[in-house]
Amino acid sequence: MLLGKHDKLVMIGDSITDCDRARPVGEGLFNALGRGYAGNVEALLTAVYPELGVRVVNMGISGNTVRDLAARWQTDVLEQKPDWLSIMIGTNDVWRQFDLPVMTEAHVYLEEYERTLEELVARTKPLLKGLILMTPFYIEPNRDDRMRAAMDRYGEVVRHLAGKYGAVFVDTQAAFDRALEQLYAATLAWDRVHPNQAGHMILTRAFLKSVGFDYNKGL
Amino acid sequence: MLLGKHDKLVMIGDSITDCDRARPVGEGLFNALGRGYAGNVEALLTAVYPELGVRVVNMGISGNTVRDLAARWQTDVLEQKPDWLSIMIGTNDVWRQFDLPVMTEAHVYLEEYERTLEELVARTKPLLKGLILMTPFYIEPNRDDRMRAAMDRYGEVVRHLAGKYGAVFVDTQAAFDRALEQLYAATLAWDRVHPNQAGHMILTRAFLKSVGFDYNKGL
Amino acid sequence: MLLGKHDKLVMIGDSITDCDRARPVGEGLFNALGRGYAGNVEALLTAVYPELGVRVVNMGISGNTVRDLAARWQTDVLEQKPDWLSIMIGTNDVWRQFDLPVMTEAHVYLEEYERTLEELVARTKPLLKGLILMTPFYIEPNRDDRMRAAMDRYGEVVRHLAGKYGAVFVDTQAAFDRALEQLYAATLAWDRVHPNQAGHMILTRAFLKSVGFDYNKGL
Amino acid sequence: MLLGKHDKLVMIGDSITDCDRARPVGEGLFNALGRGYAGNVEALLTAVYPELGVRVVNMGISGNTVRDLAARWQTDVLEQKPDWLSIMIGTNDVWRQFDLPVMTEAHVYLEEYERTLEELVARTKPLLKGLILMTPFYIEPNRDDRMRAAMDRYGEVVRHLAGKYGAVFVDTQAAFDRALEQLYAATLAWDRVHPNQAGHMILTRAFLKSVGFDYNKGL
Amino acid sequence: MLLGKHDKLVMIGDSITDCDRARPVGEGLFNALGRGYAGNVEALLTAVYPELGVRVVNMGISGNTVRDLAARWQTDVLEQKPDWLSIMIGTNDVWRQFDLPVMTEAHVYLEEYERTLEELVARTKPLLKGLILMTPFYIEPNRDDRMRAAMDRYGEVVRHLAGKYGAVFVDTQAAFDRALEQLYAATLAWDRVHPNQAGHMILTRAFLKSVGFDYNKGL
Amino acid sequence: MLLGKHDKLVMIGDSITDCDRARPVGEGLFNALGRGYAGNVEALLTAVYPELGVRVVNMGISGNTVRDLAARWQTDVLEQKPDWLSIMIGTNDVWRQFDLPVMTEAHVYLEEYERTLEELVARTKPLLKGLILMTPFYIEPNRDDRMRAAMDRYGEVVRHLAGKYGAVFVDTQAAFDRALEQLYAATLAWDRVHPNQAGHMILTRAFLKSVGFDYNKGL
Amino acid sequence: MLLGKHDKLVMIGDSITDCDRARPVGEGLFNALGRGYAGNVEALLTAVYPELGVRVVNMGISGNTVRDLAARWQTDVLEQKPDWLSIMIGTNDVWRQFDLPVMTEAHVYLEEYERTLEELVARTKPLLKGLILMTPFYIEPNRDDRMRAAMDRYGEVVRHLAGKYGAVFVDTQAAFDRALEQLYAATLAWDRVHPNQAGHMILTRAFLKSVGFDYNKGL
Amino acid sequence: MLLGKHDKLVMIGDSITDCDRARPVGEGLFNALGRGYAGNVEALLTAVYPELGVRVVNMGISGNTVRDLAARWQTDVLEQKPDWLSIMIGTNDVWRQFDLPVMTEAHVYLEEYERTLEELVARTKPLLKGLILMTPFYIEPNRDDRMRAAMDRYGEVVRHLAGKYGAVFVDTQAAFDRALEQLYAATLAWDRVHPNQAGHMILTRAFLKSVGFDYNKGL
Repeated sequence: MLLGKHDKLVMIGDSITDCDRARPVGEGLFNALGRGYAGNVEALLTAVYPELGVRVVNMGISGNTVRDLAARWQTDVLEQKPDWLSIMIGTNDVWRQFDLPVMTEAHVYLEEYERTLEELVARTKPLLKGLILMTPFYIEPNRDDRMRAAMDRYGEVVRHLAGKYGAVFVDTQAAFDRALEQLYAATLAWDRVHPNQAGHMILTRAFLKSVGFDYNKGL
Repeated sequence: MLLGKHDKLVMIGDSITDCDRARPVGEGLFNALGRGYAGNVEALLTAVYPELGVRVVNMGISGNTVRDLAARWQTDVLEQKPDWLSIMIGTNDVWRQFDLPVMTEAHVYLEEYERTLEELVARTKPLLKGLILMTPFYIEPNRDDRMRAAMDRYGEVVRHLAGKYGAVFVDTQAAFDRALEQLYAATLAWDRVHPNQAGHMILTRAFLKSVGFDYNKGL
Repeated sequence: MLLGKHDKLVMIGDSITDCDRARPVGEGLFNALGRGYAGNVEALLTAVYPELGVRVVNMGISGNTVRDLAARWQTDVLEQKPDWLSIMIGTNDVWRQFDLPVMTEAHVYLEEYERTLEELVARTKPLLKGLILMTPFYIEPNRDDRMRAAMDRYGEVVRHLAGKYGAVFVDTQAAFDRALEQLYAATLAWDRVHPNQAGHMILTRAFLKSVGFDYNKGL
Repeated sequence: MLLGKHDKLVMIGDSITDCDRARPVGEGLFNALGRGYAGNVEALLTAVYPELGVRVVNMGISGNTVRDLAARWQTDVLEQKPDWLSIMIGTNDVWRQFDLPVMTEAHVYLEEYERTLEELVARTKPLLKGLILMTPFYIEPNRDDRMRAAMDRYGEVVRHLAGKYGAVFVDTQAAFDRALEQLYAATLAWDRVHPNQAGHMILTRAFLKSVGFDYNKGL
Repeated sequence: MLLGKHDKLVMIGDSITDCDRARPVGEGLFNALGRGYAGNVEALLTAVYPELGVRVVNMGISGNTVRDLAARWQTDVLEQKPDWLSIMIGTNDVWRQFDLPVMTEAHVYLEEYERTLEELVARTKPLLKGLILMTPFYIEPNRDDRMRAAMDRYGEVVRHLAGKYGAVFVDTQAAFDRALEQLYAATLAWDRVHPNQAGHMILTRAFLKSVGFDYNKGL
Repeated sequence: MLLGKHDKLVMIGDSITDCDRARPVGEGLFNALGRGYAGNVEALLTAVYPELGVRVVNMGISGNTVRDLAARWQTDVLEQKPDWLSIMIGTNDVWRQFDLPVMTEAHVYLEEYERTLEELVARTKPLLKGLILMTPFYIEPNRDDRMRAAMDRYGEVVRHLAGKYGAVFVDTQAAFDRALEQLYAATLAWDRVHPNQAGHMILTRAFLKSVGFDYNKGL
Repeated sequence: MLLGKHDKLVMIGDSITDCDRARPVGEGLFNALGRGYAGNVEALLTAVYPELGVRVVNMGISGNTVRDLAARWQTDVLEQKPDWLSIMIGTNDVWRQFDLPVMTEAHVYLEEYERTLEELVARTKPLLKGLILMTPFYIEPNRDDRMRAAMDRYGEVVRHLAGKYGAVFVDTQAAFDRALEQLYAATLAWDRVHPNQAGHMILTRAFLKSVGFDYNKGL
Repeated sequence: MLLGKHDKLVMIGDSITDCDRARPVGEGLFNALGRGYAGNVEALLTAVYPELGVRVVNMGISGNTVRDLAARWQTDVLEQKPDWLSIMIGTNDVWRQFDLPVMTEAHVYLEEYERTLEELVARTKPLLKGLILMTPFYIEPNRDDRMRAAMDRYGEVVRHLAGKYGAVFVDTQAAFDRALEQLYAATLAWDRVHPNQAGHMILTRAFLKSVGFDYNKGL
């Protein structure tokens, strides 16, 4: 288990992370972590490793791209002083190219995505005990689908940066692809983007595996 | 133009027809026709053929399958005494097989779909000036996608029944397929099922073409 | 078709344009264009000319007069950097003279209307690929009606400025007058000002005709 | 003053009478009479003739035609046991012919209007101390307007029945016509049907004059 | 009739004037004058004297004392540039002494009331065509009641200032006292302060009489 | 202390008892007893006599007269099987005579009040350990006030029935009269009927004194 | 893994099961399973065993005791035709004895609890592939606490019935007791009854372990 | 009775004091004191000592710790110019250590609690006629419970400071402990922190006893 006693984990991202978390900081009483994978991660860490007292903070904001993360990095990441940080971003960077193709200033193309994400990673990695980089994903099994193909390219950037900077890498797309061998995409998400609870459990398991979480501990 | 002076057109279907129409009968003041293709059809008929005084009634109900249509056919179609009737059904018949695969009693399989729809068509066609059968559709260009393939089979049933009973046939899937040559699916519908206004205009044009509507009349 | 590939069209006006558009900018997902003619224009352009990728932005605000347009011209028109701009204004300039006759500072009389509108047109026309000037209208067939007569004078100003500055001219009043030969005013608008969907289709057709839109393309 | 000590006056009609009155019976505390002329009548009777203790009950229902009045006559008029009864009906009987011309079963044509109203008057007049028949009205000065002309014909029916059955007659149209010599219609009602407070005062004065109310009593 | 063509009348006061008027300025469409005597005054002036085009603005604010009026005099009276001004204030100045006797800073005692009101009157009267001073009132017939006795003293201040500065004087208390000869207080107001519509008609008649309004004009 | 271990006390009445209690039975969690004297009684009994486990049920309903109590006596009193019963009724029986003087069927005059209340008392007293009869009250010190005088007559009926049937008697009017020697009525209730929390404490103390409650027990 | 392909699991209980599930049947789209352990179970089964297509239905209702379960057993369990059934009931049976000690008809004492639960188990077990009996719990580590001691006695009944009828047994109290060695009760539930998400994960793990779920399958 | 004529008592604290009081200052009409012990204190003082005219102001804010009190001391205590001040704080200082153990910056440990509270007491006591220090409490009878033991230590600080500075001391924990000899904790508060009305009456009696209140005065 990579996370240590009283470590603080900040999870940042878009609507898939947000899931109705508390504002301005997603931590505390009354489901402050939200209803998605971040809340699941916190709940499972508390249930299985109560002695560690790991602290989880959800800083996801719906609709964000990596450009938006950069704009709020100082207050929403650095000033939170995380020991561990997870980043899952890119869905909206890609999606706007496909659902609002004419509104080009809302698009974050691959070059800007990589440059911006790398800048954040490079600046922040040295301040952390550990950095977890999660790919964006698209719950579409057809790799020839244009948006799936684009999302895969953004995921490759994440894989590349994880390797270059020694971050923990979570391939969320691969986790969904395994489920899609059995399930049709709509079973997990009508829009192939926002997972239902089963989809969030897929994300939760992928995340927790990457940090060495042992579900069976104490069972 | 097939629709004649003071003809009454009832349009029945599911959420794609419903679009927040008035209850119990989707006709009258205050956007009673709803915000989708049914409302567009009524608005264009009034704008272009004001002298005809065609009457349009929207009887779509969200979530309906052909099984639901059969259950309300007496009150919602026959007692409305339409001159013309349009039917677009099948989306939920298929979708539940893919988004709730384990909840089998919510599925309407092809055989039941065909049998039920044919029963309704056969019973009603003789009472009408004209019947318009619209295929269900799925805004997914990949014909190998399992749900698209299923939807195509349901659409084939509609085409077959239109031919057998002499109904006007509207191939909504073909209309969307033409748009998908230029547009990614998400530009028209996040979930590939519920169209935005551009998607409803595609439906509107397909419907109106089938009844000989001349957009340029009087322009 | 006057509008070209990736052209950006900004549509400004009052409540007849607004129709519950998104704020602060009427563009994007979730019916951001509103439920009136601006939304219809965007939907038909996307449905019929998907290959053009024309971008439409609705900047109408309910209750506005030309005086209000001038006050927000910098942010709401110039900073939007339109290729094409449509203006339909004047309803409230006239209406307040008739529904609140004693509240004189809410009236925009003809001279101020013409001077202000011309100033906006003269300043903006050189920055555009094309300017579309739409008359205000009053859905009242009796030309002796005092408010109709006034509205006609404001419409004449628009016609005059369109000619003087080489703008595309849309005579919305004429379009409604043709419908009123068949329909009583209340069929289109209880208050003779805010059209229902049929009325918005009349506006939509008048607008699209002026830019060379071909409804039957690809049908 | 025709109304006597402790007389009970029931006022029935459509939305112009209703004005958000209490349900099921428009009498009692908390503005139960509604915000229109019925409430004004009650307030002025109490303010000027407190010693009479006249009791006023508002039984108007929005959207009603004379057909609707007939359907609820037993519970809403006869069982209320009025000493005096006022009826103002006909607006919707006429309006639906003009705003929903194709929805013919919502129209109440002149013959049905007269027959139904006369049946109600004939049945009820003998049970009353007095009956007050108010014309419907249309706040449109142009008597050649088709809906105004129709409304005038319905008003003539009311005048005729008042004479035939010895009812007090209130010519509301004439009262509005006098105001329209000075005011444009929109100053009193955007839709020419639902008056603002000034319009309700015109109705109030017309009604009260017909029963011999002396505004200056005790001033 | 004291009010002349196109005169502007501003009415200021507390909750009895306010009655849910529009903010920030109580003038215009959609019942902007509120549901109390100010709205009645406007409606009757428009109904009876449409040719005058008198403009009425309601600037009452619930809970106000004369101390509050002084604080907003510049924006809410002077900048409105009234031709005529009516003031009815004092209810809360007195009431807080009786319903919150221990919260002394909320009390406005007689000396402060007179001094402040006189300052406002002296400053404003020269700018007006006419000033109308209305007493506060308490719908309690027992003059030995402590709060009634206090209210009478505040009313005397108003009478004194009206005489000293040549203002039109409206004795609202006397108007209510006449009604209370016939009616129990609760018939007009449960709390003896906020009148129902009958009570507002008493205020309306008292106000209009003071400006020479002729209800029977044109009847 | 008259109330014994596990005794069940039902308190019935009008809005003064109701105070937003739970429906259909005013007992249980989440302030089910409401915010008035019934809730205070329950709270003080639990706080001071926790060992008794007295059970309190609030069955007050706003607007009720004794006529309404009789109509629901079977379900709301007898089927609750109380050991002790308190009744405080009469406010609305009297008030409607004064705030709605013309609506005579809403009045419950003294004879009906006495007859109905006595019938309820005679029927129920034999089934109880004890019956507590509370007078209605009016927070008006002037005994010549017409409504106060009427309320006193209704209170006398309660006193008489308490004596005749051996019920515990609570003179709520006397309790308020003592407070009114020091306080103006509006300090306890704007409308002289619905007490604020201080007024409910006056009722609470009067009630509890009548059953021998010792506030200082255990302090 | 005990649950087999396409097995249907119905989970019944009180608020701890309910967690805002859909009505009348807790199954389907849009978080129909609710936000508690039932939703977690369904999500993990779908995520880890997508090939099984296990169907989960949540039939918990807040506030229920075993007496309430018996009353709705026919419609809410038998007519659902489950293959597997889980029951977790008893919290309210016990809690009402402690939070509403005087309201004795709301208590379900041990004898009635055992008798009723056994009747349901005996009737239903033969119809099932498997029955899962979960103890009620109280998140209070002090076994001398009176309510904890009572809850343990109800838990013993569940253990006894599980053994007697060959049901799968889930000792939820033991699972919480292990967590309480590390955590204070308030970290999991303010009221020691309704768990937060961490507490629901403890329930989820205890439930899934009992049916042989392998979290690491496919990871 | 320690409180004298027209004395002003400010009561500050956390949610147990707040109870939905008015903002920004908890004084005045419409239940401005809230629904807890502060409101009860005001109501009983007014009911029993109406001649004193004691003024009570509730300045509690939910969620506050002593750290929060210090931050708003100037505006919320000193500028209120109290004669008497009561302070009950510490619940959240302790609770966050137990319900959010990992969120350490939300904890106020004993040393900071004592230092901050003493600073406030020392600064303010000289300005007052009297200071009332109330212990925080935890409605848990088991003194070995970790949070109860912690709360007792914070209570000891209050007792110590009361002695050191000559403040009136209210041992709220002792008052609840007496009730807990008869009642289970959940009868007074599900979460052992927020009392129901019976619990607030326990607080009310403890507070009032400390200032020499005589409940039986005038009974």
